[in-house]
Amino acid sequence: MKQHYEVVVIGGGIIGCSIAYYLAKEKVDVGLFERDRIGTKTTSAAAGMLGAHSESNGEDTIFSFARSSQQAYNELKDELYTLSGIDIGYREGGILKLVFSDADKYRLTSLLKQPTVKWLDKEEVKKMEPMISPNVLGAAYIMDDMSVMPVQTCESFANSARILGASIFENNDVYKVEEKGDNYLVRTTKGDVEASYVVFATGVYGNGLFKQIGLDEELVPVKGESLIVHNEKHALKHTLFHESCYIVPRTNGKLVIGATMIENDWGDSVSLDGIKVLIEKAKSMLPSAIEWKIDHVKAGLRPSTFDGNPFIGSHPEKEKILVACGHYRNGILLAPATGKMICDFILGKKMNREWVEAFRVDRRQSMVI
Amino acid sequence: MKQHYEVVVIGGGIIGCSIAYYLAKEKVDVGLFERDRIGTKTTSAAAGMLGAHSESNGEDTIFSFARSSQQAYNELKDELYTLSGIDIGYREGGILKLVFSDADKYRLTSLLKQPTVKWLDKEEVKKMEPMISPNVLGAAYIMDDMSVMPVQTCESFANSARILGASIFENNDVYKVEEKGDNYLVRTTKGDVEASYVVFATGVYGNGLFKQIGLDEELVPVKGESLIVHNEKHALKHTLFHESCYIVPRTNGKLVIGATMIENDWGDSVSLDGIKVLIEKAKSMLPSAIEWKIDHVKAGLRPSTFDGNPFIGSHPEKEKILVACGHYRNGILLAPATGKMICDFILGKKMNREWVEAFRVDRRQSMVI
Amino acid sequence: MKQHYEVVVIGGGIIGCSIAYYLAKEKVDVGLFERDRIGTKTTSAAAGMLGAHSESNGEDTIFSFARSSQQAYNELKDELYTLSGIDIGYREGGILKLVFSDADKYRLTSLLKQPTVKWLDKEEVKKMEPMISPNVLGAAYIMDDMSVMPVQTCESFANSARILGASIFENNDVYKVEEKGDNYLVRTTKGDVEASYVVFATGVYGNGLFKQIGLDEELVPVKGESLIVHNEKHALKHTLFHESCYIVPRTNGKLVIGATMIENDWGDSVSLDGIKVLIEKAKSMLPSAIEWKIDHVKAGLRPSTFDGNPFIGSHPEKEKILVACGHYRNGILLAPATGKMICDFILGKKMNREWVEAFRVDRRQSMVI
Amino acid sequence: MKQHYEVVVIGGGIIGCSIAYYLAKEKVDVGLFERDRIGTKTTSAAAGMLGAHSESNGEDTIFSFARSSQQAYNELKDELYTLSGIDIGYREGGILKLVFSDADKYRLTSLLKQPTVKWLDKEEVKKMEPMISPNVLGAAYIMDDMSVMPVQTCESFANSARILGASIFENNDVYKVEEKGDNYLVRTTKGDVEASYVVFATGVYGNGLFKQIGLDEELVPVKGESLIVHNEKHALKHTLFHESCYIVPRTNGKLVIGATMIENDWGDSVSLDGIKVLIEKAKSMLPSAIEWKIDHVKAGLRPSTFDGNPFIGSHPEKEKILVACGHYRNGILLAPATGKMICDFILGKKMNREWVEAFRVDRRQSMVI
Repeated sequence: MKQHYEVVVIGGGIIGCSIAYYLAKEKVDVGLFERDRIGTKTTSAAAGMLGAHSESNGEDTIFSFARSSQQAYNELKDELYTLSGIDIGYREGGILKLVFSDADKYRLTSLLKQPTVKWLDKEEVKKMEPMISPNVLGAAYIMDDMSVMPVQTCESFANSARILGASIFENNDVYKVEEKGDNYLVRTTKGDVEASYVVFATGVYGNGLFKQIGLDEELVPVKGESLIVHNEKHALKHTLFHESCYIVPRTNGKLVIGATMIENDWGDSVSLDGIKVLIEKAKSMLPSAIEWKIDHVKAGLRPSTFDGNPFIGSHPEKEKILVACGHYRNGILLAPATGKMICDFILGKKMNREWVEAFRVDRRQSMVI
Repeated sequence: MKQHYEVVVIGGGIIGCSIAYYLAKEKVDVGLFERDRIGTKTTSAAAGMLGAHSESNGEDTIFSFARSSQQAYNELKDELYTLSGIDIGYREGGILKLVFSDADKYRLTSLLKQPTVKWLDKEEVKKMEPMISPNVLGAAYIMDDMSVMPVQTCESFANSARILGASIFENNDVYKVEEKGDNYLVRTTKGDVEASYVVFATGVYGNGLFKQIGLDEELVPVKGESLIVHNEKHALKHTLFHESCYIVPRTNGKLVIGATMIENDWGDSVSLDGIKVLIEKAKSMLPSAIEWKIDHVKAGLRPSTFDGNPFIGSHPEKEKILVACGHYRNGILLAPATGKMICDFILGKKMNREWVEAFRVDRRQSMVI
Repeated sequence: MKQHYEVVVIGGGIIGCSIAYYLAKEKVDVGLFERDRIGTKTTSAAAGMLGAHSESNGEDTIFSFARSSQQAYNELKDELYTLSGIDIGYREGGILKLVFSDADKYRLTSLLKQPTVKWLDKEEVKKMEPMISPNVLGAAYIMDDMSVMPVQTCESFANSARILGASIFENNDVYKVEEKGDNYLVRTTKGDVEASYVVFATGVYGNGLFKQIGLDEELVPVKGESLIVHNEKHALKHTLFHESCYIVPRTNGKLVIGATMIENDWGDSVSLDGIKVLIEKAKSMLPSAIEWKIDHVKAGLRPSTFDGNPFIGSHPEKEKILVACGHYRNGILLAPATGKMICDFILGKKMNREWVEAFRVDRRQSMVI
Repeated sequence: MKQHYEVVVIGGGIIGCSIAYYLAKEKVDVGLFERDRIGTKTTSAAAGMLGAHSESNGEDTIFSFARSSQQAYNELKDELYTLSGIDIGYREGGILKLVFSDADKYRLTSLLKQPTVKWLDKEEVKKMEPMISPNVLGAAYIMDDMSVMPVQTCESFANSARILGASIFENNDVYKVEEKGDNYLVRTTKGDVEASYVVFATGVYGNGLFKQIGLDEELVPVKGESLIVHNEKHALKHTLFHESCYIVPRTNGKLVIGATMIENDWGDSVSLDGIKVLIEKAKSMLPSAIEWKIDHVKAGLRPSTFDGNPFIGSHPEKEKILVACGHYRNGILLAPATGKMICDFILGKKMNREWVEAFRVDRRQSMVI
């Protein structure tokens, strides 16, 4: 381990690994520290939907940010494969945001104004997915939403970063960050290291460090449980989505049914209750899902901020401490744009002002008055 | 592989392994052939309840047979451990056969006459299991039913048999049994072997062989799915049982929730539907079960006969071909008595006439007239 | 289950699934029966190298067959993905057939005459794979050999076949094939079915059936054990190959180290001896491999014929019984060409005469005189 | 979560769980905080040998401490089973400390003086373990060393503690301990809690907290890798031991081959190098071990102190902060005595002075002069 890195990134989920990748691509000397192994916590429990539209009404700031991030994957998929040899499992096909009631449809009003979104009536949905529930009245077909496989994407970022010169340390817990002259001293289980910049990409596990560096925010975990299943008989072609539950077909032939939303549960086991809820939800969208076979289950802790948007930017008082946390349900989707933005902060590049404002770390304080 | 065994046993589930054990104990030269690995099919999906009472009304022939088998485990647990070093996970504590309605209670009438069974009213049940459902009106407390861990029990039989001189061949499929003079020629993937006696302990997988040897019976698979779970907070002390579903606490700290009953399904995957049914059933007995965490799932094919009782005895025309099949829900419970009985057949010992009649292979034919 | 299929395929490994796919594509009514689940036996233990050159001297009949099969994957990868949504993990990069001695190099003489193979000296190898052993003297660089992920490829064949109309039955053992008029009666655990044609794609597990249909050949299992590993630090770009051992990097970021060759072992466990041999072999090619981390182990039974070539063609006396067995080390590679060839047999299409002769089922008998 | 506990224990490995158990038994109000899940780190990678003699020369202080701890298991096994229903896998049979050379034998001199240890010559060893290596010249037979199953033992401690009233919090990281009046404020991911006493049972993961509370010691990880295997053919009756490697047969029919010693490696993956070393070592003791089949692999980080003995006792300046760390290779063995001793500290009971001195947290400082 070197004694000094220009940038130390804390956290090796998909956000941290994307940051390391973008920095390494710009030849910045970067060291990343992960407490466990790369991509084994929240990242590993994500479904990997790149649903720029499906998680938004298509009008807010987060939408433009998400859309730019989603589009970045288009090039990244080849770029990362060429560097790392790891396929990110990119899958097109689009998302069907299902409508079971007038209220459901009403909520899609602004989404349906997007040029890449098309209304499908009951018959059209049935034509695209013949096994769909007869209770479905129609769907917003988001034509260019896609999905990736989260763990492989994270590993692909990490390995590509390594190949470009980044140092990535697994099983290496950072327990303290201290100021030391103009630099920061990052204290880790394997020893101490200095850095000019420190980036927190810790997910919900970094609350303790937040306090140490005087950040008055706390990320709340919202546990999400998923089922990974397979299905011998009929392929699902499109991701189905309704009321924050979804069924995502993957390029390895598995399907992910997700996800529950359990606030303030720090465990990563999957409860019988969670499984039951997911099965019922899948059945309501696709009755034949009840015949699917289970492979395994998975849970992860989504890091949630007070307003649902991530923190991306500098510490209010220490500009060389950067935060990239709180991506909640959208870590996989937002990883490229977050990586790029943190890299731009460090290199002093020009950035989208709207995004900078929307994701400011101290935005709650400014709101207060 | 030797060219001749006195007895060849086909099938290495718990029935076959018990037979090999009892024969080896009597110094009979026995070779057992298992298509996969010992104890990995139906045996591995059993909960291991030794419910002599819970699966019966306490009055029929099968009850006396089951009871004798259950009691054999009392000595077997130490005998097998001493020989093989493998603990069978024997667990006392009794079974609570729950009553939710008058009809439920009525069905327990004859069971409650047994000296080892005691009626508990609502409050008494609650005292024994504080988290029990408020809908439970009472329970038959079967004081001396116990449970074992099926895979370890099967391996303990197999290894003990080996130590006593039996030969056990895994990954060795028997595809044909032919007469050859006074002997039988058993044709296996690894080569042919002769035997004076052949014992079919094949479970549902032996239907093809049955036809070859002129046996006009077919075992129907009744798939059973289970959940293996754990539970950090409160221990369950007793096995709970209601309408062919159960929750069995094990000596390794896990609990088994079983089991569905799906006729004519030959697969060994676990469907979302099966999981859902089990969770609902567990919840109806113990509402807090909904918080339990899942470890894994398991399915097996119970081999069912036309009348629900096993076939234990000689082929109607070829007395040196023996059958020990069709143990349905009770393979683990009945393994010792079945092993003993097949051994007695071969050694020409005196046997309980009632059992011999009840389990005769050609009993359907005799019924017909 | 229907009562009649035009073609019944026995065996759901990659050979059987490819056959079902090619038949379904030609609108032939096909039913496939697999004893366990699709792709879970020998197929699942393959590394997936499509080494048309690496397993051959580049001059024999099997080479032209292998080469045509390898090239078929080029189109199949997209065709199968479009139909099934399952990515086959196709990976280019080429194979380095390493040379440690003059004898090694001598054995490559004819291979090096191929237009797609290039000799690399020590320095050139080191440039391509910096961590290569200093004992490597050079390598034959087979530029266009590639690899796929075997299980996903098999599932992609199976699901694509289903989508094109094939019926695929899992957990369904065929225990007998009988003549019945002009047809065959195929007896399975789930019931009987008739077929005009029956194709044996059983691997080593079909020896019993072979005898039943009067085929005087026996496939010998050659067990192959593999390690699946990962490696945090440096990517391997090319498959390394030496003396029937190899290291194959996969598109999911894992590496496969294979494979031992153990004759007449029918088990599918991995022995400590096998692991030791593989580690030593990997280390001899790439010393730093010793630092890699293990994920899991796997074993499968390669079906070997008397001369190392597969049987592809009709039963000598019953032309509507076809055999596609004995693909030994090359099942994944040869699956497309075998599927195509069996399909051509059934449709009475013109075939490459050289291949037909080389893979005839009764070629041993013709040799004898 | 309550706001105050009399004692907070940090760390839910076997040491922490034993402490919680002994405290709860004395009706002390105890809360335990574990970052992951109970018993899933170092504890889960232990073989479970209770080798009071095998790890010591039988003369030092640690021996008398280990011996008392070992003997405590004799009662604990029933006590814990009765409370928790979890069997700890207690297995007698003794340990054979093998001798391959005169030097080996010389090292056993003082051990052989123990009344429970017996010298066996080559023939006697062969009689006890017929498959032993022909290179073995003899063995010290430690008659009453036994083994347990570490994870089940840890869970049995934890669940018994719960049943006696302890609160055990999983997935709950303690990131800071601060003084607050006469109490301590323990800050955790799930919120803050106060305690009169704080016990550190953190293993090697607590180095960061040590610094926070002014403890000038650092535990060094010594990674240990193990193979868990099974063996169809012949049972091993006794634990074999040579040069810090061992083969331990378990009551579930598996065998553990352990363990490597890799200093300063914080990862918990198992490397190919480690596996190779273990296989060679097992083979040197028992040549036929090479045929065993692998089930899985496991690694854990032994927490090592400067002198190899654990720290058990008060913080030098803050007597209500207690430390129970650094149990190195002997966590499972020493858990009961450590739990008892910490409990005695807190209750102000009389303790063995020799042990108190030997395990003092500040013993290095006193040595210095």
